[in-house]
Amino acid sequence: MNIAVFCSGNGSNFQAIADSVRRGEIAAKIALMVCDNPKAFALARAKKLEIKSLLIERKNFKTKEEFEAGVIRNLEKESIELICLAGFMRLISPGFVQRYRNKILNIHPALLPAFKGTRSIKDALGYGVKVTGVTVHLVDEKTDHGPIILQKALEIKENDTEESLAGRIHEIEHELYPQAIKLFVEGKLNLAGRRAKIE
Amino acid sequence: MNIAVFCSGNGSNFQAIADSVRRGEIAAKIALMVCDNPKAFALARAKKLEIKSLLIERKNFKTKEEFEAGVIRNLEKESIELICLAGFMRLISPGFVQRYRNKILNIHPALLPAFKGTRSIKDALGYGVKVTGVTVHLVDEKTDHGPIILQKALEIKENDTEESLAGRIHEIEHELYPQAIKLFVEGKLNLAGRRAKIE
Repeated sequence: MNIAVFCSGNGSNFQAIADSVRRGEIAAKIALMVCDNPKAFALARAKKLEIKSLLIERKNFKTKEEFEAGVIRNLEKESIELICLAGFMRLISPGFVQRYRNKILNIHPALLPAFKGTRSIKDALGYGVKVTGVTVHLVDEKTDHGPIILQKALEIKENDTEESLAGRIHEIEHELYPQAIKLFVEGKLNLAGRRAKIE
Repeated sequence: MNIAVFCSGNGSNFQAIADSVRRGEIAAKIALMVCDNPKAFALARAKKLEIKSLLIERKNFKTKEEFEAGVIRNLEKESIELICLAGFMRLISPGFVQRYRNKILNIHPALLPAFKGTRSIKDALGYGVKVTGVTVHLVDEKTDHGPIILQKALEIKENDTEESLAGRIHEIEHELYPQAIKLFVEGKLNLAGRRAKIE
């Protein structure tokens, strides 16, 4: 199975997925890393990992639809069957979701449905929760909403800052995302409504 | 410190709190169990535990305000300094919250802010989360919203039903609620905005 990983920044989840593939834990190939930001460190990672990368910038297209059509052409060229969003900072349009229905995964630094959006870690600290976590889910038309594949909780400590909490959350992400991808690649996920059953 | 526990039904959390007090874990007295439902099993528990109970029915008062004034008179008579809602099925009015500001605890069968309301366990299963839990929080003017004292997560199993999940959640409740009450009674909670720090 050919996988594409989408990044906009550091790409540490991309790295974790690539490492897991290289260790033989995921029986798939990362055929493409798609990046929308020329300054993203993910591009340097792809080079070092010898993974093909596509830098495609929104500003070079008139509309979001044309930008996404450009992305899709490249995905089709590589026969991509699974897309893993890994810190990709653009919302995927409903048309894109439809084209790759139940084939787009995302990782979110909170226990969804709590703390949707791009400031989850800060929001969780501000709300004063004692437990937060990480969610891997399928992407549907609504933001941070699709069926949940895996979740893992972690405790917030009295003296946690946004930085210290983010560090522990990222560690969990780097374990949880490859696990979820492995389940997908091995065909072990069955959707019953919103509920993802693992075989 | 004199505690009142408010119940509308079975009263299993009331029992857990009373057991914890009896074991000497909480240095306080349950001076009153307030119940709004003549059919509640909590009444029989209070009798067996030799804890004073007040059955006070909403239908015997013209307005919610008069009903709550009747409750408050009884709380004042017993010099209550902490109220523990334990399956009490009525919403507390803002006036009541104001009278006992930061002295009302509630337990909720989910990891707030996820799955507020009275059908949390069913809602969590329906949403397909893999992790849920229990929250003890201070009651403020908004439903299931006040500062969080303690939370504990638990994993949802593939074959969980509402019943099996509720069973495990209740076990956690019976541990977590006495722990939170103990922290309150010992003056170990410090509020910094919404964030409850434990000394």
